[in-house]
Amino acid sequence: MISTEPAARALAAELPRRVGHPVTLEGWLHRRRVLKAVTFLILRDRSRLAQAVFTGPHGTAAFETASFETTALEEIPEETVVRITGTATANAQAPGGVEVTEPTVTVLSGPAAAPPFDLYRPTVAATLPTILDHAPVALRHPLLRAPHIISAASVAGFRTALDTLGFTEIHTPKVVASATESGANVFGLDWFGTRAYLAQSPQFFKQAMVGVFERVYETGPVFRAEPHDTARHLAQYTSLDAELGFITGHRDVMAVLREALVGMVEEITRRAGAECALLDVQLPEVPQRIPEIHFVEAQELLAEHVEQDPRGEPDLAPAHERWLSAWAQREYGSEFLFVTGYPMAKRPFYTYPEPGWPEYSNSFDLLFRGLELVTGGQRLHRYDDYLAALAARGESPEPYAGYLDAFRHGMPPHGGFALGLERWTARLVGADNVRRVTLFPRDLNRLSP
Amino acid sequence: MISTEPAARALAAELPRRVGHPVTLEGWLHRRRVLKAVTFLILRDRSRLAQAVFTGPHGTAAFETASFETTALEEIPEETVVRITGTATANAQAPGGVEVTEPTVTVLSGPAAAPPFDLYRPTVAATLPTILDHAPVALRHPLLRAPHIISAASVAGFRTALDTLGFTEIHTPKVVASATESGANVFGLDWFGTRAYLAQSPQFFKQAMVGVFERVYETGPVFRAEPHDTARHLAQYTSLDAELGFITGHRDVMAVLREALVGMVEEITRRAGAECALLDVQLPEVPQRIPEIHFVEAQELLAEHVEQDPRGEPDLAPAHERWLSAWAQREYGSEFLFVTGYPMAKRPFYTYPEPGWPEYSNSFDLLFRGLELVTGGQRLHRYDDYLAALAARGESPEPYAGYLDAFRHGMPPHGGFALGLERWTARLVGADNVRRVTLFPRDLNRLSP
Repeated sequence: MISTEPAARALAAELPRRVGHPVTLEGWLHRRRVLKAVTFLILRDRSRLAQAVFTGPHGTAAFETASFETTALEEIPEETVVRITGTATANAQAPGGVEVTEPTVTVLSGPAAAPPFDLYRPTVAATLPTILDHAPVALRHPLLRAPHIISAASVAGFRTALDTLGFTEIHTPKVVASATESGANVFGLDWFGTRAYLAQSPQFFKQAMVGVFERVYETGPVFRAEPHDTARHLAQYTSLDAELGFITGHRDVMAVLREALVGMVEEITRRAGAECALLDVQLPEVPQRIPEIHFVEAQELLAEHVEQDPRGEPDLAPAHERWLSAWAQREYGSEFLFVTGYPMAKRPFYTYPEPGWPEYSNSFDLLFRGLELVTGGQRLHRYDDYLAALAARGESPEPYAGYLDAFRHGMPPHGGFALGLERWTARLVGADNVRRVTLFPRDLNRLSP
Repeated sequence: MISTEPAARALAAELPRRVGHPVTLEGWLHRRRVLKAVTFLILRDRSRLAQAVFTGPHGTAAFETASFETTALEEIPEETVVRITGTATANAQAPGGVEVTEPTVTVLSGPAAAPPFDLYRPTVAATLPTILDHAPVALRHPLLRAPHIISAASVAGFRTALDTLGFTEIHTPKVVASATESGANVFGLDWFGTRAYLAQSPQFFKQAMVGVFERVYETGPVFRAEPHDTARHLAQYTSLDAELGFITGHRDVMAVLREALVGMVEEITRRAGAECALLDVQLPEVPQRIPEIHFVEAQELLAEHVEQDPRGEPDLAPAHERWLSAWAQREYGSEFLFVTGYPMAKRPFYTYPEPGWPEYSNSFDLLFRGLELVTGGQRLHRYDDYLAALAARGESPEPYAGYLDAFRHGMPPHGGFALGLERWTARLVGADNVRRVTLFPRDLNRLSP
């Protein structure tokens, strides 16, 4: 049947509400199954899959194509963009319990070239490089698309939780004059003839903005010129940053982080339930009080139970993080664990020391399912403390002058945290590599697509 | 009186609900007014100003300071971070009708150095360069802070509107392999030894992601190496980008943009009413149908009424945009005007031509209060059309190969738009320069703070 002017488009997910009525779907031809007496077309749109069924002989079924010759059904390849008009009809065997009968198909944008791997198969056969090289097409696979829906819901939940707590969203420069936060791993660029750098974090800006808004967050890109090719590092990633003033210590920051996590899980539940089901994601419970352990106690536990880092570094190696995370699960039934009080020597100069124990700090990491997910803590807020901290590290205050100036003009006790979005999503969906949950990863070896 | 352990902090805006009860405020000493028989301290926190009143002699009033010596009231400079504990007492003369009586003051972070200009004065005496040079302190002035609250509410409203319409938020690379969208005005950088560029827009990525999510948006930084120092250009700005598939033409995109604008205005009303009142912002009404005029008709009108651009350019000069905007206000009572059908020659190669009039295009600009605020339109969606469009412009498809590949695999008719956040906020608050509504502007001459 040749199509006439279509009614307004319906989404596949709306079909159950249309049973008995004419309906127009638009989407991609996900799969074509030609059987002896019947042909099924599976259409994919942003909501889900839907089935259209042709009975009778089809070799000569005609289609109106928007700008091409009339085409036989068998000549329309998968991934072609089509419009299907017909009647929504209940059928317990069809996906969603409804299918489109007496369908007419219109090709909307010409026959599609074959994708780099079959998108209709229930599993993904392609390797990670193939997926990344062909992201615009590969990510159409429902299994590869789903993590990004979960990721978007996570960010929305983060923002909603912090908005509710009186935070203000900010947008800060991604190009800065000096590579302040840490000398290494920065990308240099030419800024109208001046040497400049991509910002490794919004740290200094968000601290300064505590002086203006008290509570701020930013959800944006940060850049690390990571010279290592690992499964958990990207050269650009999305950092969920927050900073708040008028705290009494790092635990006030941890309490806000907990609220943010609750908001993220809630919004995933609300928006991405189908994607969680598809990927078999078990969402974590965020305990009323996330368990915490001081760095020194953690070291003692690890000394008893885990082989020590031969470097003797006063830090937690990935294996240590995994062990501690499993320990928190056993001891407290929690997938989250705060490790607090990291040694000052391992934290940036703006870190606030632990009162009464100045070689340790009012800082924390949050471990989630075996991996460091968040770093945060209280910051210095007095100008003189900054000068002393830099002097103690043998650093000149000169490159930090613009940053430090804010602290001369009255800054409250404050602190904050940064959560790596891709690490969060990767942990949630059980991805073995953050690149699996990044639309277009950027790293040592990858600058396109 | 020496302070004791404070009760939980209240915000200044909560005072009216606390009348008759003890209360603890924390914030900045906005203003100290020492009169003969009474001294007023005005405290500023993120919610508003609040007044504390000391009666009796104060030259010797004592304060506990967190880490300093006991200080006389007169020695605590403005902008010092303080805690004020006392009783909330109704007083019709006080800001908000309530003040804190019998107050005790604790200095929380040492005396503040004097700000670059008086933050307590009702107007801002400083020049724009002074404001920008001292942004961390200057933006504390309520008049300079308010636009950023309006800006944050705008972005929230944009996202809420598009979320409701089934859009998915994406995060795309800010570093790209080729300066594709336009050869000029790009920042180059060294990416692990490879030449790379800062992304001028998420254009190609958002188009590709229509193939995955159908409807996407991104709210993030874009970079233009603008060699001109104008009041409306920044080298980094925040772009509110959207793209959607399965459209019938550019008017479907315009309809979505209208919904986004409605969402933005609604969220400003909800979150930033006080800031709008402070700045005397008149929020625009978004008409049910925003008036539109075709580029050719606009040219005819302008030929009649406005002196022509001596260059004879087939484009709208700023003076033309102002005239058209005023015309829409007169004719339709609308502060918004769509100009549609821009000549293909003035639009990027991915622009969809106007059916039946191929030298014009299915594109639009949205003018708001005399200025171009949004650019958008329908894009080409067929691979062959891209090859032809590039060939017609004498360009090789080679640098676009990764981008074009998506179109070989089935892309629906689609389009989108980009709205410059700073321009929007500047228009709303009547700022004469986008730098007044940008926290830390980046331009030809400015890379810090």
